[in-house]
This record gives sequence, structure tokens and C-alpha cells, in this order.
Amino acid sequence: MALEKINQVNDIKKLSPKEYDQLALEIREFLIDTISQTGGHLASNLGVVELTMALHLSFDLPKDKLVWDVGHQSYTHKLLTGRKSGFDRLRKFGGMSGFPKRKESDCDCFDTGHSSTSVSAGLGLQAARDLLGGEEYVVSVIGDGALTGGMAYEALNNASGLKKNFIIVLNDNHMSIAKNVGGMSEYLNGIRTNELYTSLKSGVEQSLNRLPGGERLANQLKKTKSGIKQLLIPGMLFEDMGITYLGPVDGHDITKLLDIFQKARRVKGAVLVHVLTQKGRGYRPAERHPSRFHGAEPFEIETGLPKNRRKKANYQDVFSTCMVKLGQRNEKVAAITAAMPDGTGLKRFANLYPERFFDVGIAEGHAVTFAAGLAAGGIRPVLAVYSSFLQRAYDQVLHDVCIQNLPVVFAIDRAGLVGSDGETHQGIFDLSYLSSIPNMHIMAPKNKWELSDMLKFAVEFDGPIALRYPRGEAYDGLKEFRKPVALGKSEWIYEEEDIALLAVGSMVKTAEQVRRNLKAIGYSCSLVNARFVKPIDTEVIRELSREHRLLVTMEENVRSGGYGEKVLNYAVLQRLPVQVLNIAIPDEYVEHGNVEILYEETGIDAESVTKRVIERYITIRQ
Amino acid sequence: MALEKINQVNDIKKLSPKEYDQLALEIREFLIDTISQTGGHLASNLGVVELTMALHLSFDLPKDKLVWDVGHQSYTHKLLTGRKSGFDRLRKFGGMSGFPKRKESDCDCFDTGHSSTSVSAGLGLQAARDLLGGEEYVVSVIGDGALTGGMAYEALNNASGLKKNFIIVLNDNHMSIAKNVGGMSEYLNGIRTNELYTSLKSGVEQSLNRLPGGERLANQLKKTKSGIKQLLIPGMLFEDMGITYLGPVDGHDITKLLDIFQKARRVKGAVLVHVLTQKGRGYRPAERHPSRFHGAEPFEIETGLPKNRRKKANYQDVFSTCMVKLGQRNEKVAAITAAMPDGTGLKRFANLYPERFFDVGIAEGHAVTFAAGLAAGGIRPVLAVYSSFLQRAYDQVLHDVCIQNLPVVFAIDRAGLVGSDGETHQGIFDLSYLSSIPNMHIMAPKNKWELSDMLKFAVEFDGPIALRYPRGEAYDGLKEFRKPVALGKSEWIYEEEDIALLAVGSMVKTAEQVRRNLKAIGYSCSLVNARFVKPIDTEVIRELSREHRLLVTMEENVRSGGYGEKVLNYAVLQRLPVQVLNIAIPDEYVEHGNVEILYEETGIDAESVTKRVIERYITIRQ
Repeated sequence: MALEKINQVNDIKKLSPKEYDQLALEIREFLIDTISQTGGHLASNLGVVELTMALHLSFDLPKDKLVWDVGHQSYTHKLLTGRKSGFDRLRKFGGMSGFPKRKESDCDCFDTGHSSTSVSAGLGLQAARDLLGGEEYVVSVIGDGALTGGMAYEALNNASGLKKNFIIVLNDNHMSIAKNVGGMSEYLNGIRTNELYTSLKSGVEQSLNRLPGGERLANQLKKTKSGIKQLLIPGMLFEDMGITYLGPVDGHDITKLLDIFQKARRVKGAVLVHVLTQKGRGYRPAERHPSRFHGAEPFEIETGLPKNRRKKANYQDVFSTCMVKLGQRNEKVAAITAAMPDGTGLKRFANLYPERFFDVGIAEGHAVTFAAGLAAGGIRPVLAVYSSFLQRAYDQVLHDVCIQNLPVVFAIDRAGLVGSDGETHQGIFDLSYLSSIPNMHIMAPKNKWELSDMLKFAVEFDGPIALRYPRGEAYDGLKEFRKPVALGKSEWIYEEEDIALLAVGSMVKTAEQVRRNLKAIGYSCSLVNARFVKPIDTEVIRELSREHRLLVTMEENVRSGGYGEKVLNYAVLQRLPVQVLNIAIPDEYVEHGNVEILYEETGIDAESVTKRVIERYITIRQ
Repeated sequence: MALEKINQVNDIKKLSPKEYDQLALEIREFLIDTISQTGGHLASNLGVVELTMALHLSFDLPKDKLVWDVGHQSYTHKLLTGRKSGFDRLRKFGGMSGFPKRKESDCDCFDTGHSSTSVSAGLGLQAARDLLGGEEYVVSVIGDGALTGGMAYEALNNASGLKKNFIIVLNDNHMSIAKNVGGMSEYLNGIRTNELYTSLKSGVEQSLNRLPGGERLANQLKKTKSGIKQLLIPGMLFEDMGITYLGPVDGHDITKLLDIFQKARRVKGAVLVHVLTQKGRGYRPAERHPSRFHGAEPFEIETGLPKNRRKKANYQDVFSTCMVKLGQRNEKVAAITAAMPDGTGLKRFANLYPERFFDVGIAEGHAVTFAAGLAAGGIRPVLAVYSSFLQRAYDQVLHDVCIQNLPVVFAIDRAGLVGSDGETHQGIFDLSYLSSIPNMHIMAPKNKWELSDMLKFAVEFDGPIALRYPRGEAYDGLKEFRKPVALGKSEWIYEEEDIALLAVGSMVKTAEQVRRNLKAIGYSCSLVNARFVKPIDTEVIRELSREHRLLVTMEENVRSGGYGEKVLNYAVLQRLPVQVLNIAIPDEYVEHGNVEILYEETGIDAESVTKRVIERYITIRQ
């Protein structure tokens, strides 16, 4: 058993080369076995087993620096750096992260999570090395999907002209989470599959050599800096940008990988090693459906089917159905995703209305300005995007959409706590960063029907408008409350007195439980569904202040800059005779873990809220 | 006189081709004459006179859509679309904008300001066109500097595979505002100056043709899709990405431009027209010093020297001097700019410590993550960046710097109202978008000495920290107040009672005037320099609440999510016996105009503030 011998970093170097294949096999078995129980990123990790092994064999960790773009493919790296036991509590609260974390190991030199950051970070690390006189190698691993993100290109543009070694490993599996898109992908595909370059290379050389005097010409041309090189070297696009290109190489052949990394180490300057890998490698269901095994729930190993079948619809399913209807009803409705056609639920829209569907790749900034262009041209674009990824397009929202007051709909998915992906993926800032942008409007639905109603409202609204909803199961309670959506208007759910709960989106469900708790011990309590975070419903706040002594705002967002602060501000400025208690996520990053646990940890679960409301109300009554 | 004949869009088409040169001459004279009086963007506009004329001659405005990246080069476009008289009040409050504005003309189809957006917007417009069955042409003009911005690449990546016409005009002047950087620039330079491609092209063709059988080979190779084409066609990098490349063409030769645009119109799909222009063309001082004539103050035409010589140092000069000192004292201090070495004042640092200076191009996202990498590697990076441009890197600040709590210093320049550049460039959101990011610290200096002190404090601080300061003349009052900077601590300036002014950065100067006004009519008034916007100095707020009845916060930022809201919140939550009045910029975009006028318009000038303070204080006393 090879994996048993791996207990800390560099133990892999003690293995004999004959054991490499066995280790790869055992790592795959371990990953499939573990992730089938815990859930996690499977397909991407199965794709880089040999690549990770080769990197560990070729470099000297932790001295050398290895930056994993996105980072969810770092499981083998974690196994090879003494963290095997951590997989028992992978992505669980207090357990091991599914991403590289500097605080977890000194072999993790830079935390990642969002896409396309590794070349920038690696460039920083190599510049620091050179300034401090270090000799370590810096290696950034980036996927071909991440290469559609603009900041990867900004970094590549800066990698030209380096005088010392910097290695970029392009992990090319021809996928982002979904199928990769765009010109760069086509280009890589050209190298990867057509064998055009290699065949043409030898073909031209042979042709020239066959001609009298041709050999001399071929040699002469080889010497020119940018001439025939283009013909003889694949990856000329990178060479054109001043980066040495090596490859392509089979990413599942350790011997070849070791060989190419030795070559890469000798390059002075930036070198890109083009490694071809297969997502899901070694596990049939994942090879066939890499997208389904991207971030997997626990599954049966034999069949690949999820262990726990979903009973209820997700918000993404509801969004999916509603988009199809809106697309049918209004030919001007278009849909945009940044590489998340499955995750956001746009797949059906894409199949039905391919000409009105745009997957722009991992490129949120472009996605937003592209949407602005569509809107300026008379189309009603709906951009479905995860809350934490829209952070990438803050300026484009502010500068390209909102200054011009263009009717772009932002369907903000994964808003609130997302759970096991942790700090980098929690969607807990969108209410803050969007609220201070002029002309922006923000809604949040309480349940699945309201998501549909709000989406319908949004595509007919003449200005920038966002609706934010959480990951996972759609709430199907409070069905009877379905007042038509009106700009800036809240919705009364229960009208009583003393305490008023004013809850945003997902927190309406929680507020209902809080209200039941409070009523059970004799309190009188109203419940209002805020609906709009911007503009806030000042009328309902004034109204609530008349009959209540405590107004409790509830939101799944950090407190700073969120909904509660706005309500508190308004109440104070208007000198309303009511006290305000803000329930929100504390102004801190929130780690990975089960969402229910995170609610408790951040104090926004029904029991914590109930307790805080009672504590505060008691001080008021005194 | 040709310019006299141009009174509305398409009047240029009535000229005879013989008049084109004369028109170009007159436009240049007009621009030099006007901008020498009003100030404005000169060099970039002089560079695109013929290009703009050729575009207007080749296309049918306003039906066809012309998107100007950044937009400050749109003066000739404005002249050709009936806005000549607008130049009298160019960039003045209520006057014509220096950027394209949809509300100004139907020939301006998309507002721009920040870099690298035009291809994304153009793609949106062409997609809308195709969905709505339109036949108009869409043309996006982008500079080679803007091409270093990642979202331009994200858009180019999406332009491949288009089936209908979309024209990208690459206005290549080998500059951004400063000298352009990076691999793409080198690549374009290769095409532009070396004539490698053209000479090599004919060289190889001739060589092959001279060989027996070589002609057949050359023809055969020409037919292969991606083979010899690389050798025979410049711009293969774009072709590799699936975009047809035309050029390079002399951007000052109208005949050639007209010819190439005719060719471009016939391309099905995306086509990039590579146009070579000279910044500052036709005005010697601007040709020689294009960077100085980027955004020019009024100048003497004969000498090119500014009409009004500055008497006092700018904040940028102070920053410059301080950076040099810090660089000398601490070898670990590095400096980063995103294409603004002059504007930010980093030029001297760059000259003295070139190995520790990094100009990453127009690439704010990369700049921030690169800084994070440097910090993770043991260097203390100072990123000098304009407030409105840092918006581009919101996610990188949140995700790459602050989650890891890395010691990156953000020197946020042009914070607050910047004046004549208008909506897109006002730095009035940074306090809001940075404040809600955990682990971030934010300072603002009251005067030039404090800028130095804070910068010194920042490079020794072990975590993410920002200091924000305005454009232009550094305040040199209050010299005697120079208490050492301490984390989260404010600075007392004048201690009295009743009214307390708590002012942030640039507003301390205003607050001093407000205090003089108030004292003149008998009020007692304290003044505190907030220094820290995050964390706020809760101790001083509690202290102030004891001796004062009204606490006035003052900041040059929108109210929403800013400093004032935080102070108000704290006072309410702590039930402090004091009322809070927030002076801030209203939650709206602020147009272009003289900064002094904008202060009045937004109500943050000393007179407006005085008035509001008195009004509020009277209600309290009653």
C-alpha cells in the first residue's frame, strides 16, 4: 500500500517510481470513497492526481510555492502534505477546508476560492522572492476555464519579461465547471485535439527539407525570433505574449510530467506548461458527467447517484421554470451566465432559446457590461450570478449599468450563507455593496412563489434591479401570502403589536419560527416581509413604529451596510418612537460548515434570534 | 473653412475628399485652441482626428453604433455631431461632458469613463441588434492601453464565433496614459514598429517562390487554416482567438482608413482593425509629452506650459516624497500602480527603486492580488490607485487581501469629488464599499503632514489598510496638530461644548471653516479629526456625547454605508445622549464641474454645512 507511506510532505519522494501508479490508484480510491460519504469536489480532484504527484516530486515544498487557482482541486495536495485524517471532517464546521488555507499548512502558500487569481498571486510571490534574494520556485496552477477570467490575462500580460523562473501550469481539461467557452478555449482545443500543430510542424520541416536549399531556409527561419517559430511551436499565442510555452503533455503520465517540469525549471523567465488532463479521471460516472461531479453531494459509488434524493424544489429550479416562462412570454428577455449554466438553473432556458442565452465564461465583469450593452440595445437581460462572484463586477454594476440607469436584472444566486465552501463563497456582502450604488433596486423573495413574482416584476422594471435568493431548497411555506409586488413596498404577514419582525428574503421563514417562539411564551408579535432592501419601505416602518415598541430587522448579510442599518437610520432620522434591533451576520468572514450550524454560529437561527429579541424587549419594558 | 460646414451629424459626408485634410487641420486647431483655454484631454483627442472622421464617413450615425472606450477621446466625435458650441463649457458644471453621454446626443450610444468596457458593451449592442433583427453596424473603439484590462480580453474571448459583423477598432498609440506595459504591448509593438511581419511575410513568400515546387507549397500552406497563416498574417494572436485581423493601417491616412473600414464591413463575424495613431499628433508639445497633455490644465499654446502655475504642493507630491523616504528606510517597501505612475506620484519612487516598482498596466484586479502575493511573500506593497478605479478590484480586496489579512497598503488617490471628469470618476464610494469588508482598516488625512504620518503608520501596520486623500492641492493648515497616529484613534483639534464636528480627511478643513462660522455667531463648537473611518473611534464618540448635544459627522463620500451612518449607529446602539447629524454626499451620482461648485451642489461646502448645523441645533435647543 503506497498511500500508507505518505504521512507528511515529501514522503512521496521516498517512494520508488514503480510505486507511482499504485499511489495514484490508491489516491483515487481514497478520494472517491471519502467524497462519496462527505460530498465535495470530485471531478476536478480526480483529474489532477498525477499532476499533483509530479509537482510534489519535482519541487521542494514548503520552500517552493505552489498556488492552486480556485483551490477546490487541492485534495491530492492535502493528502500529500499530511492531511489525510482531515478528510474525515472535510468541509465540516471546524474541520478541514475544501480549499488551500495558509492557516492549515505551511504548504498552502496562498488562499484561493474564486477563479483566475493564481497567476497574479504567483507573480507577487516570485517578485517577493527576487526582492528578498530567495531561490525557491513559484508555481501557479490554473485551469483552462479560469483562463477566461480577465485577471488571469492581466497577470499573463505581466508575466512577460520576467528574468527569473516562474512556472504557470495550465491544467487543461477543456472544461470550466460546465463546458468552456470562447476563443481561448477554441485555441487550446486546437492544440489539444487537432494535432494540427505537431503534424504541421513536421510536415513543413519535411517539405522544406525535401526541397533543394530548403533545409537552409528552415534553419534560417528557425533562428528568426518570431517568424517560423509560430509555425513550429504550438502555444504561439503565449509565446507572442512573451511567455515560453512547453507542451502539450499528457497530464496522466507521471514520467512525462516529471520530464517537462525539469525543463520548466531551467527556463529563465515565465514558462507555461500545458498539461492535458481529464476531469473525473478514473471514475466512470465522473468521467461521463464531470459537471454533475463538480461539487457533489454524498453519492453511491456503484451507481454515482446521490445518496439523498431531493424531495423539494431548489430556488434554482424555481428560477429555471420562471425564466422559461418569461422567455416564452417576452421575446426580449435574454439570459446571461458566467460559466454557471447548470448551477444557476439556466440550462432549460439555454436549450429552448439558444439565441437568447449567453454563457460568457468565467468573466463576471464582462458579463455585467455585456448585459448593459444588451439593455442599451433594447433587450431585457437577466444575469444569473452567484452573490460572491458578482463581487468581481462591482465596478461594472456601478459604472456601466447604474450610471446609465439601464434595465438589467441581476438574479443573485447563493445569496447568504452557502455552507461548506466557506469564506470565499459566502454570499453575505451583496446587500452592502449594492445598496450604496445609486439607481440600484434590491429585492429578496420569502418563498418560491415570490421568487417568480419578483422575477416577473424585475423584467418589466425600467432600471437596474436585483433579486437575491439563497442556495438550495426553496421555502414553500406562507403560500397564502402573495400580494402583487410593488416598487419599494413590503408585505404584511401577521399584524399584532409590541414586537415587529421585519425580515428580508430567506429570513422570513426564520422570522416565522421566531414569532411562534415568542407567541408561545405570550408575546404579541407582527411579521412583515421586507421584500425591498432598496428602496426601503419607509411607510411600513412608520406604521410599525406606531403600534410596536421594538422593531427587529432580520437579514442574511453582514450588518455593516446592510438592511438593518438602513432601517435603524431611518427610524432615528425620523425620530420614530420605536427601538430597532438589527439581526444580521456579524462583520466577519464566516468559515465553512453546514448551513444550519453556521446560522447558529452567526446568531441568525430562530433560537438565537428569539433569545436576543426577548433580552432586548425586556430592557424596553423596564 | 471646412469646420464651418459641420453643423450636425453626417455633414462631413457632404465634404469633398479634397477637404478632408483641411478639416482635420481645422479640428486640431479648434481642439488646441479650446483645450488651451478650458483644459481637458488633449493628446488622446489629437491622435484620433482622422480616425474619427473616417469612422463618421464609413458608417451611418446614429443608426450605426459607435462605442468609445474610456471616452475621453470623443471630442472630434462631438464636433462632428453638432456639439461644437458645447466646447465653450466643456467639463464645466451644467456644460458638455468630456465623455460620451447618451443624454447628450443620440450619436452617443453608450456612456464610458473607465477603461476596457467598449468591447463588452459593443458585444451587447450587436447581440441586441441580432435579436431584434437590426442591420446596423456596431463599432467599438479601444486603445492599446485599455487592452491590458482583463475585461477587454474577456470580451475578445467572447467575440470569437460571432456570425454577424462586429468591428473592433484597436487605436494603437503605444501608450495608455503613461507608456504601455506587458506582453500584449510588446506584441503590438512587434507588429507596429519592427515590420517583422510584413518583411518576413514577403521574405518567406519570395523564398518559397524561388524554390522549385516552393510556390505550390506556399499556396498549399496558405490554404491550411492555422498553419502558415501565422507566418503570413500579422495579428495572429487575434486570429488565434477567432477574430479576423485587418491592418496595421496608418491612422492618419484617411484614404487608407476608409478603405480598411470598407473591408471590415464585409467581414461576417468579429473583425479587429489595427489602427496606428500618434498621441498628441499635430501639436509639438503634446507629441513630445503626451502624458503631460493627457488631462491638461489650461496652457499657453506657444510654449505648452500651464497658464496657472501651481503654488502649493498636491497630495500626490506629498505622497511622492513620502514614498521615496519610506523606500529608502525600508527595503521591503514596494510600490504598485495600475498605469498611473505620473498621476499617483510614484514616478520618483520608480526611478530610485525600479526593482521595487511595478506598473501592471490598466489592471486593477490583478494589481490587488499581485499585491496580496507580494505581501504573502514578505514584502510591504503600497498600491497607489484612484478611488473610482479601485472599484474594479472590490472582489480582490475582499477575497485575496482581507480574508488572509495580508498587509497591503491601499493609497487611495482622487478620493472624494474629482471635478471635471464627472460621474464615472468621482471617488465617492470607497468608504462605503471598503467599510463592510472584514479586516479592512481605513484612514483619511486632514492635511499634508498627516498623509505622511499615516503612510508611515500604514507600511508598518500588520494587516490590510487604506488611506484616502483627494485630488489636487494638499491642505497645509493645522500644522500644529500632529499627534502620533494610533490605530482607531481620532485627534482632538478644538475642545469646546454644545456642537461637535467630527470630520473625515478633506472635510477637516471645511469643518474648521464651519466652526469659524458658528463661533462668529456665538456657538460653542468642538472639532475632532476622525482619522479612522474603520474602526471608528468609539471612545471619542462617547466622550463627545457627554459634553455636546449635537454631533456632526462630515465626509466626502456618499452617505449610504459611509462614516456618518456608522457613528449614528453606534450612538443609537449605545444610547448616547447626543443627536447625530450626518453631512455627506447625497446618494446620487455627481456630474462634472468645478469641485467648488460640486461641493455647493452636494451641500458639503462650509456655508451649506453651517446652515444645516444651525437648523438642526435650533430644533434640539427648543
